[in-house]
Amino acid sequence: MENRKKVEVCHTPSLYPQYRKENQIVVVIDVLRATSAMCAAFDNGVKKIIPVATIEEARGYQEEGYIVAAERKGQIVEGFNLGNSPYGFMTGEFKDKTIVITTTNGTRAFHTARDADEVVIGSLLNLEALSQWLIEQDKDVLCLASGWKDKFCLEDTICAGAFVDSLIKSGKFTTDEDSSIAAKYLYLSARDNYMAFLKASSHRRRLKALNLNEDIKYCLTPNQTDVIPIRKENYLVLLEK
Amino acid sequence: MENRKKVEVCHTPSLYPQYRKENQIVVVIDVLRATSAMCAAFDNGVKKIIPVATIEEARGYQEEGYIVAAERKGQIVEGFNLGNSPYGFMTGEFKDKTIVITTTNGTRAFHTARDADEVVIGSLLNLEALSQWLIEQDKDVLCLASGWKDKFCLEDTICAGAFVDSLIKSGKFTTDEDSSIAAKYLYLSARDNYMAFLKASSHRRRLKALNLNEDIKYCLTPNQTDVIPIRKENYLVLLEK
Repeated sequence: MENRKKVEVCHTPSLYPQYRKENQIVVVIDVLRATSAMCAAFDNGVKKIIPVATIEEARGYQEEGYIVAAERKGQIVEGFNLGNSPYGFMTGEFKDKTIVITTTNGTRAFHTARDADEVVIGSLLNLEALSQWLIEQDKDVLCLASGWKDKFCLEDTICAGAFVDSLIKSGKFTTDEDSSIAAKYLYLSARDNYMAFLKASSHRRRLKALNLNEDIKYCLTPNQTDVIPIRKENYLVLLEK
Repeated sequence: MENRKKVEVCHTPSLYPQYRKENQIVVVIDVLRATSAMCAAFDNGVKKIIPVATIEEARGYQEEGYIVAAERKGQIVEGFNLGNSPYGFMTGEFKDKTIVITTTNGTRAFHTARDADEVVIGSLLNLEALSQWLIEQDKDVLCLASGWKDKFCLEDTICAGAFVDSLIKSGKFTTDEDSSIAAKYLYLSARDNYMAFLKASSHRRRLKALNLNEDIKYCLTPNQTDVIPIRKENYLVLLEK
């Protein structure tokens, strides 16, 4: 019992200092849509993803000839060809390429966790594969929900709760924090019908207004890939298993 | 529909800047136990409560002859006779008196909301009475959960969710934020048996270890009083209805 590792949830990036610990794997989660798009990109053969925090950095990379994806307020930023729709990365044209990406919330959360021992990218898409890998690592895990402009966001917390549930079920993890217990409860209430559960959520309403219902359906369908994007230096690569 | 006011939930004091708005009534909630104790105190005839942030300020008032309650880490601070147990304020000896109080989380949340238009004290104890009053005010409402050392805390969020549920049921309120939706879901799951729902919660474990089960039972029993403590200058008085 005493050897069990902790799996905890941090609801927004600004609370990260209260939850961070030494020797912890951080799972960055931005279900709608940054981390789902990253999983889709690796699943479609992308070789490397460089998350950047600002549009300025993104433009700098663009000028150097990189393929750059930039999203703000749910839309592709003017002057870029890609945003954070997972479908944008499924055309086959980015196989073995490097992609630079900046988004409203997800890339910010990635940079928030810069001091973490290890950082991996989580979404409902790679829930089972990533859970399995986390269980094998024998380290404490912190699920970092990206939220929306540093506010609590339902779909990221539910996804975090799904990881908490999987890891606790393995018998190798336990949880100390109310944030993790709440996330798990919300996941257990939501899992039979994410779309219905999230129908009132602020972010879903925001994306629906932008006609992104297909994206939402895709991002809320668990276990479509077994990719695990992992941080190496300041970028992401596919974990070799 | 368009005239409906908002009722929102902020899960911890440090996120308050993201949720604050002009012309908003803030309901400060610290179920275990500061705001429950404040409700109990007014219900037992206390005239005025001065919440202070630090032990040093509390000592200053003590030296001036005030009755002072001071709690840290769930226990009465050395040198003081009262902490934040509601039962401490039910002896009848503080009728018409002023009490100075400092606690780990609740008094901090009170000070966090210092710029709010109005501040009232909420707990499960005055849920119905305060909900009714809030419904009559025709203003936006923000439930500010005190949390635990700026982490998310389950019982405060559930109590906030109870206020959200009551206000929305009145037909005069709606909600925009995922934090409020989550709080309401957690309340609806918890309301039939708070003790069982919270059995895993970190704060309940903390207090149980200190033999405070009677306090917990009291604080988790809704609608035991109709007092509404309201801020006036930098202290609290009983709202005259």
